Amino acid sequence: MQEKQENNSKKRESKSQKTGAVQKKKRVTPQKPQARVRKPATGKPRRSVGRADNIKVTFLGGLNEIGKNITAFEYDDEIIIVDCGLAFPDQDLLGVDIVLPDFTFLEQNADKIKGVFVTHGHEDHIGGLPYLLKNINVPIFGTRLTIGLIRGKLREHGLLRRAKLNTIHPGEKIDIGKFNIECIHVNHSIPDALAFAIRCKAGTIVHTGDFKIDSTPIDGEIIDLAKFAQLGSENVLCMLSDSTNAERPGFAVSESKVGESFEMLFNKAEGKRIIIATFASNIHRVQQIIDVSHSLGKKVALSGRSLENVVGIAKELGYLNIPDDVLIPLNRVRQYDPGDIVVATTGSQGEPMSALARMAFSEHRNISITENDYVIISATPIPGNEKTVNKVINELMKLGAEVVYEKMYDVHVSGHACQDELKLLLGIVKPKYFIPVHGELKHLKRHADLAKNIGMPSKNILLLENGNVVQMSNRSAKVVANVPAGRVLVDGYGVGDVGNVVLRDRKHLAQDGLLIVAAAFDPKNKKCVLPPDVITRGFVYVKESEKLIEEARDLSLEIINGFLKKNIFDQGTIKARLRDDLSRLLYERTKRSPMVLPVLIEL
Amino acid sequence: MQEKQENNSKKRESKSQKTGAVQKKKRVTPQKPQARVRKPATGKPRRSVGRADNIKVTFLGGLNEIGKNITAFEYDDEIIIVDCGLAFPDQDLLGVDIVLPDFTFLEQNADKIKGVFVTHGHEDHIGGLPYLLKNINVPIFGTRLTIGLIRGKLREHGLLRRAKLNTIHPGEKIDIGKFNIECIHVNHSIPDALAFAIRCKAGTIVHTGDFKIDSTPIDGEIIDLAKFAQLGSENVLCMLSDSTNAERPGFAVSESKVGESFEMLFNKAEGKRIIIATFASNIHRVQQIIDVSHSLGKKVALSGRSLENVVGIAKELGYLNIPDDVLIPLNRVRQYDPGDIVVATTGSQGEPMSALARMAFSEHRNISITENDYVIISATPIPGNEKTVNKVINELMKLGAEVVYEKMYDVHVSGHACQDELKLLLGIVKPKYFIPVHGELKHLKRHADLAKNIGMPSKNILLLENGNVVQMSNRSAKVVANVPAGRVLVDGYGVGDVGNVVLRDRKHLAQDGLLIVAAAFDPKNKKCVLPPDVITRGFVYVKESEKLIEEARDLSLEIINGFLKKNIFDQGTIKARLRDDLSRLLYERTKRSPMVLPVLIEL
Repeated sequence: MQEKQENNSKKRESKSQKTGAVQKKKRVTPQKPQARVRKPATGKPRRSVGRADNIKVTFLGGLNEIGKNITAFEYDDEIIIVDCGLAFPDQDLLGVDIVLPDFTFLEQNADKIKGVFVTHGHEDHIGGLPYLLKNINVPIFGTRLTIGLIRGKLREHGLLRRAKLNTIHPGEKIDIGKFNIECIHVNHSIPDALAFAIRCKAGTIVHTGDFKIDSTPIDGEIIDLAKFAQLGSENVLCMLSDSTNAERPGFAVSESKVGESFEMLFNKAEGKRIIIATFASNIHRVQQIIDVSHSLGKKVALSGRSLENVVGIAKELGYLNIPDDVLIPLNRVRQYDPGDIVVATTGSQGEPMSALARMAFSEHRNISITENDYVIISATPIPGNEKTVNKVINELMKLGAEVVYEKMYDVHVSGHACQDELKLLLGIVKPKYFIPVHGELKHLKRHADLAKNIGMPSKNILLLENGNVVQMSNRSAKVVANVPAGRVLVDGYGVGDVGNVVLRDRKHLAQDGLLIVAAAFDPKNKKCVLPPDVITRGFVYVKESEKLIEEARDLSLEIINGFLKKNIFDQGTIKARLRDDLSRLLYERTKRSPMVLPVLIEL
Repeated sequence: MQEKQENNSKKRESKSQKTGAVQKKKRVTPQKPQARVRKPATGKPRRSVGRADNIKVTFLGGLNEIGKNITAFEYDDEIIIVDCGLAFPDQDLLGVDIVLPDFTFLEQNADKIKGVFVTHGHEDHIGGLPYLLKNINVPIFGTRLTIGLIRGKLREHGLLRRAKLNTIHPGEKIDIGKFNIECIHVNHSIPDALAFAIRCKAGTIVHTGDFKIDSTPIDGEIIDLAKFAQLGSENVLCMLSDSTNAERPGFAVSESKVGESFEMLFNKAEGKRIIIATFASNIHRVQQIIDVSHSLGKKVALSGRSLENVVGIAKELGYLNIPDDVLIPLNRVRQYDPGDIVVATTGSQGEPMSALARMAFSEHRNISITENDYVIISATPIPGNEKTVNKVINELMKLGAEVVYEKMYDVHVSGHACQDELKLLLGIVKPKYFIPVHGELKHLKRHADLAKNIGMPSKNILLLENGNVVQMSNRSAKVVANVPAGRVLVDGYGVGDVGNVVLRDRKHLAQDGLLIVAAAFDPKNKKCVLPPDVITRGFVYVKESEKLIEEARDLSLEIINGFLKKNIFDQGTIKARLRDDLSRLLYERTKRSPMVLPVLIEL
């Protein structure tokens, strides 16, 4: 697919922003006082000269973590933001849906923000936008597909009507405030991905976004190495580069390789129905599934809401080239011979509610897995998902399906540059300073080592943390301030109201459950009106623990009546003793520590 | 280290066993009626001939799962068991400590059991023994090291005094009842590992246990391939073989390779303190750490209880060769130059309470990590542990340590045979039937494919499930019955009392916490005596949710008083309505579904 290369430079100014809104969030990480970024003491009298001298880069996410990528660039009291992503919760964040960056710094500086420039349409780069826009309606810039995906997201949040969405194009240069942003085409596992060259009077900063170098990409456009080479001749001040694959030697394999594997495997499936799981956003992968299916005369059905959604958008915007009558509705699959059908599905990470998991556990409405199915998992498990993916594979096999996964064949390639690509790009761009981004510390460190390998001086390589504000000029680059940059947890409608206390309680309840003891007492009679009620959940199998429950009830009655007889009616005192003594009893009997919750009603 | 090769054949008979004990367990998987194994209808009149004709193999664990390996072999009303392991709980088994096999079949047939033959001392092969022995005091057979490790385990459970422990040796043949068991030396990631050739009149079955083929093992003894080759000439009826690495091509790398890497890295560490994490039971690895340290004039300290424990046993039994004055106590480490110290530690899987994790999170009593530390993680993350291991690596790096991990260098090798080794052993032993064991379905399937590759007929390869009873003779091998073989969960002192209900509640509580509404009412007055009490845990941040709590209280009062006014006092009815209506309110307001627990006290 040919990228359109337009050059309609745009200049936009943000309206004054709503800022005084009461913040509803609580941060999980401890807060430092909400320091505004300190102004550098330049010692120069003329303010404009001092300003023009340096640029400040503020990291609000994406460092020492995978996900929630967001970086702010500030020059002369104007800010542009690159990306605004979310992160997916670790398993210790019980019940949490998604993790957002802390927007405090941006909200406090809302009047300076000129726009958010989005590199590509993955959740870890766009997923935070609806939450940012609820407080600051800042203009958003992205390529057609990226904007298409953002549009869908904002619609869900009821924010589309007032959003200021701007389509930009590879090769385009956008003047915005005192910045000029150049859009550079890169290869990645989603089409229409960009790197940015961010220019201001203090110099040029290159932000690669997520990228790889693919010499045979599906859309025909190789990453714009010529542009990066040109940047190499103009004294780039700093480069921020994707560290996701900094641990992997060599070059990432081309996406086209996957198509070859598909062709080989589709033939190998010999009359079986093919079910192929991939990331919904990997439109190149979907294109290859369609191409190979079409060439073999097979029909393709889609399973999974996100896949239907993304394919719909990509098709509408012309990013997918689907011949007529190749796609069929999922509920018509049964009408065809198994050998004529390919089902593209979500669930390549074994997600419990995904289409593939529902097939594996025989809960899918339209697809029943049999030995007539040939399943291809066209993805690698993201660290942490290995066990859920394995479970799905084993269940599919139990139903008789043949399953092709992981390193059996080249059915997946990464969208991120490996060591040789990273070194190549650094070597071409030749920045003065280098900041590895997008990765855990171990990735950033390895990326820094690569930079040292190709001769960059250590002092010019910055290993940073979220919250750091780096001030950069041709003379120096250093951390001059820190701003709040913890994680904001989203659970249901609540943004930031799940904090350490709630998580600690959930963890406690998850481990050993709870025991409630409820009693009503009359201070006049100095005793409980009835024996206390004891209720447990998630602690023991009640039917087999009647004796223990009875013991807990007797102990509670004894404690409460003991206090009442001594004319002690203070609920805090009585409850504390109940908690202590019951916890001790339960631990002695079971070696478990359920949460003990006394409920007292004073009549 | 030279293995002693003795041949003092032993013959032991088990005493009559205690069997009538009341069973305390509940099974998590649904129970079939506790079928005794059906006797095959051979049609032959003479019972002894019928008996001598076949052997029954009952799989109680280790199939379609990693862990809790245990298999029973029955011939002519006599049973021997191979291994009795535990499994570690998946993350969805909230609060569960360990997972045991279901011993029902063994308990029902206790009088037939002649002994448990243990292949080696890993938890997934010995960890279930204390729980089996609590009900059936069956004799145990294992090599010196294996018995040493079992002894420690039984001591902890207060079972050592009455346990019947028997030391066996590679090369030895043991007559036990109508069986003869030959012990065959194999290589593995713990010394003194065995395969067994189990002979009875119905034929010979080979059980490999866990094994690899190491041509340069640390203890000098290569797997006894000559013995396997000899078996190949005596018409082996069936082989059961380790499938753990059936997905990996080629040959497993020799343990000696790790020593070479240690030597190179210890030199590379240049004056830094070396901290090296490994599995406690990998005594060969510990030996190499000690050897390399000694050759470079460094002292070694041990950190982590299990490592101290295993090293103590291995040293006492002569499995570790430690020169005088190499080992120093951990609390004396500070007295040495960093460059003179190697700390061997547990925690290679990132376990939260392990010594390495405590170092990483600055909670270790004796070790403070600085940039003067060079950490080597001499292990690969077990699937599911990737994130915790990464967390530990990142934290160590934050403290300034250099960290060597995973595929950076050959700092770890697997103890399990890869595809070429598996094929080699099958090709040498040439069994009539083949049953892949020790692995998830995907491993077993791949192992079955390897057998087909080398020409075994598909019909002679059996893919089985836990609970299957296979009857085998020279003429056929088929599943003739199923016995209970679910998982028994251990949580604290409770064995089997955590089942589906408790787990479901824990999961619910973990996701969204709980809300308790407690009220006392007087049926005479037909209303609550006080407004209901509303308590939440793990649901919302209470301070910011006062309004919601107030709403819940008001709704509860309205519901309860509504029923009372209509003379409905049935607690079940009132509670059901409270649960429904409160759940709906809370979901509408928060999009969360906490567990709602109404507590009513009728005065």
